[in-house]
Order: sequence, then C-alpha cells, then structure tokens
Amino acid sequence: METQIFESEHQVNYYECDASQQLTISMLVNIMMQASGEQSHELGVGDEALAKKGLAWIVLQYTVDIKHIPTAHQKIKVTTQALSYNKLFCYREFNVYDEIGQLCVTAKSTFALLDSEKRKMVRIQDEVVAPFKAPFSKRLIRTPKPEKIKEEQSTESEYRVRYLDIDTNLHVNNSKYLDWSVDTLDYEFLTTHKLTHLTIKFEKEVYYGHQIKSQMSLLENETGQFISAHRIMTGEVVNSEASMTWEKIEKESSR
Amino acid sequence: METQIFESEHQVNYYECDASQQLTISMLVNIMMQASGEQSHELGVGDEALAKKGLAWIVLQYTVDIKHIPTAHQKIKVTTQALSYNKLFCYREFNVYDEIGQLCVTAKSTFALLDSEKRKMVRIQDEVVAPFKAPFSKRLIRTPKPEKIKEEQSTESEYRVRYLDIDTNLHVNNSKYLDWSVDTLDYEFLTTHKLTHLTIKFEKEVYYGHQIKSQMSLLENETGQFISAHRIMTGEVVNSEASMTWEKIEKESSR
Repeated sequence: METQIFESEHQVNYYECDASQQLTISMLVNIMMQASGEQSHELGVGDEALAKKGLAWIVLQYTVDIKHIPTAHQKIKVTTQALSYNKLFCYREFNVYDEIGQLCVTAKSTFALLDSEKRKMVRIQDEVVAPFKAPFSKRLIRTPKPEKIKEEQSTESEYRVRYLDIDTNLHVNNSKYLDWSVDTLDYEFLTTHKLTHLTIKFEKEVYYGHQIKSQMSLLENETGQFISAHRIMTGEVVNSEASMTWEKIEKESSR
Repeated sequence: METQIFESEHQVNYYECDASQQLTISMLVNIMMQASGEQSHELGVGDEALAKKGLAWIVLQYTVDIKHIPTAHQKIKVTTQALSYNKLFCYREFNVYDEIGQLCVTAKSTFALLDSEKRKMVRIQDEVVAPFKAPFSKRLIRTPKPEKIKEEQSTESEYRVRYLDIDTNLHVNNSKYLDWSVDTLDYEFLTTHKLTHLTIKFEKEVYYGHQIKSQMSLLENETGQFISAHRIMTGEVVNSEASMTWEKIEKESSR
C-alpha cells in the first residue's frame, strides 16, 4: 500500500504577494491547502462529498519552514501527502519547489473532521481517509508548540471579522489568523526581515461579526533571529496561538 | 496594425472565493489585472521595465459587468486588449469566459502612467504603449460615473490600512477598495444577492497606516435591482467613489 502523493503546479500571482513581491505567508498556506483540497477531490472525498455527510476537514495546527519564499510570476510546484491517521487526527505534509526545482518550503499539518452542524470534532471515518492510502497508527504525533506570548511586553490590535474572512466552513479561514498576526508587526520590521519558520495552533473557531484581538510580543534570540509570539483572542477566549521566526534580510539579497 | 489580444487561463482557487464558493469581486479584478500585467511583461513593457524608468501603471476607473460569476475550481479564460490611448490615458478591455467558453464577465478600464517618485501622472510615452499596437486617438472616452452616495441614509465603517493592503506601487491596491466597500453590506444581503455591475473611480491614493472610512447607501430601483453607492474617505478627502448593482438570487440558483 503506497501513500498517494499529489502534485500541483501554481503560478504565483502578483495579488498573492506583498509590496516586495514576495508570496505572503497566508497565500502560501492557501496554495498548500488548495493542493490538499484538489487531492481529496480527485480521490472522490472532496469538500462536496464530505458536505453530503455533514462533515468538513478543519486544520488544527501547522508548522511551515521556509528556505526561500517564491516571488511574483514564478511557477512553483506543490506536493502533498497524508502521512498517517488515528482515531481523531490526520497528519499531512507539503513540499513546495521553486521554479528551478529546488525545495523552498516544507510544512506539516494536523487535520480533524468537523460535524458541520454540531461544530464538534468527530472520529475519523475509514471511508473518508482510505483513498489516501496512508497508514492507520494509534500513535499520536507530538506537534511543536508555539512560543508563548510575553504578556508584559505584548502589543495588540483589534479587528472586526469581515464577510470575506469567512470560508465555506462558515468560520474565519485559517489563513486570516496569519494576516491578523503579521499585521501587528510594523512596516519597517516587515520590509527588513524574512519569515523562516511558523508554528500555529488553532483552538477555537472565530465567526462573522466577532471582534478579535491580535496580540504579539517580539524577542531576539541568542543567534540573532527574532521570534514573534502571537495570540488571537475573542474576549477572554484564546482562538489561536502562533510563533514565527524571522531573520534579517541581507543587503545583497534581491528583496 | 492589429491590436494585440492577450489570452490567459486561470483556475479559480477556493481562497479567491467567498463562503458561497463564488469568486469575489476583488479577486475577479485581481485576475483581470494579472492578465494585463502578463501581457505587458510579454511585450517587454512590464512592471520591472517601467520601474527602471521610474514609472508605474495606475488604474483610474473601471466598470465590470457580470452575467454570471465563476465558482471555485472552475477553469476560466481571460482576454484583454488595449483599445486606444491619448496624451494621458490608456483604455483597456477585458473579457472573461467560463469553463464551457461562455462569456461571463466584461470590463473596461482607464489606466494612466504614474511617476513613482513624484506621485504625479505623466504623459503617456509612445515607447511604453507602442508594443500593444492600440491606436492613438485624441478623443477622451467618456466613462460612466458611479451613482452618488445618499448622504442622509448612508452608513459607514472604519478600516486601518494594513501592510498587506499595499502593493508594489506602495499604495493601497485598487482591489482593497472593493473589499472595504462590499464589507459595508450585511451578511444577509450578501448571501441573498448577486453583483451584476460595478463602476469605480479612484481619486486619491491611500497609504499604509491611514485610517479610512467606507461609506455606503443602498437603494432599490424601479426594476427591483438594488444599487449600492460607495465612497472611501480619508478625513475629508475622497479617495474613491463606486456603485454596484445587485439582483436577488433566485431560489433555484445553485448558490
């Protein structure tokens, strides 16, 4: 039994990039998620098939490692495969290759099945995952935890959830949490640093009309990297925690 | 001399769609602009070539007519061509065809050349437009004016410009004005009505860190259509005016 590897090509559009023509982290994640959605669809267990059972995939956490970020107009290749599953979780990985075939991004993620009506996680159903040919394994995979926010030096911004933040699961799309998080860093920082690592854990859904707080603290570590810790909150409820590693962009870089 | 028609294919990704899986108006515009950018690039007068001259294309106004809006996962085709130009303006049109080759969207737009440093419009330079083989015509084309907002019944929402709202021209990307405008309409209206026409006119650039007001008034016309009039303002400065025509979605529609 060979795990199904899915491959998808994508041209990076200018509107998926920031002012420096670099693919944004939220769009990078969207492009990877699109690939896993396409694989599911091709195997007959896409969103529509799941919706008929009253189910939907939700993402619980992911880590992304970025060697170099694709830029506008480049043709990239995304591969993805389910790694294993257990009673409650499915593990999936992604690789992104740049225009000359170099591996530039790797990611690992944990998915669960949501009962769309009850908004509760349900047991993974064999017929939903069988087509991916990933092994069942009782073992829970330990996933990295985001760095905790430093309360005493955190800053925060407020955002009202917009209509266009909502996806077909009728909650805020996971990529929007990244937009809210990145936006707490200032312009000067964002244009002089590059993101090399992201870990995010989703705790509670956010819905249309909610007012959220995006909190952030920033620290420099002993190797000169910056670690930003992020938390999205609705009132006293924690919706997500994340941390990002940033490195200073060298002057000779093309950025 | 034959005007160059450029053709580009695009697969509508889930993250370009709203909760009902319909391509959003801002992403539709982005996809069209991407096609014109690709044409310019192919003809050797792309963004990078213009940037070397200290120039950039900016869009001053567009109208979009939507017969039916593409949905997630569909493969669409975009064609675009320069129509004519004069001392200050270039006119361009777009057609979008759905998966079965039916024309579903048409758009007309006016572009101008910006001196990126001085933030001023400059005369259209022959060498920049010659490759498109569109005719020079002294005649200014009259473009439709958006409906005016009804002050006495308008509502408004405030938005702070985010880092990711900024494009390579270092101002808010034109599509973000549409997001701010659409977001003033409520959830119930947006899920029961479809956009059939848009006219937008850009007056003044918006920059990073600005706080904008998105104002809107909504009226039903004699044929049962709804017209929403929109205005984006920074303090007392009008940044853009727009109007949109909406029709009730029939129950038997797939939405």
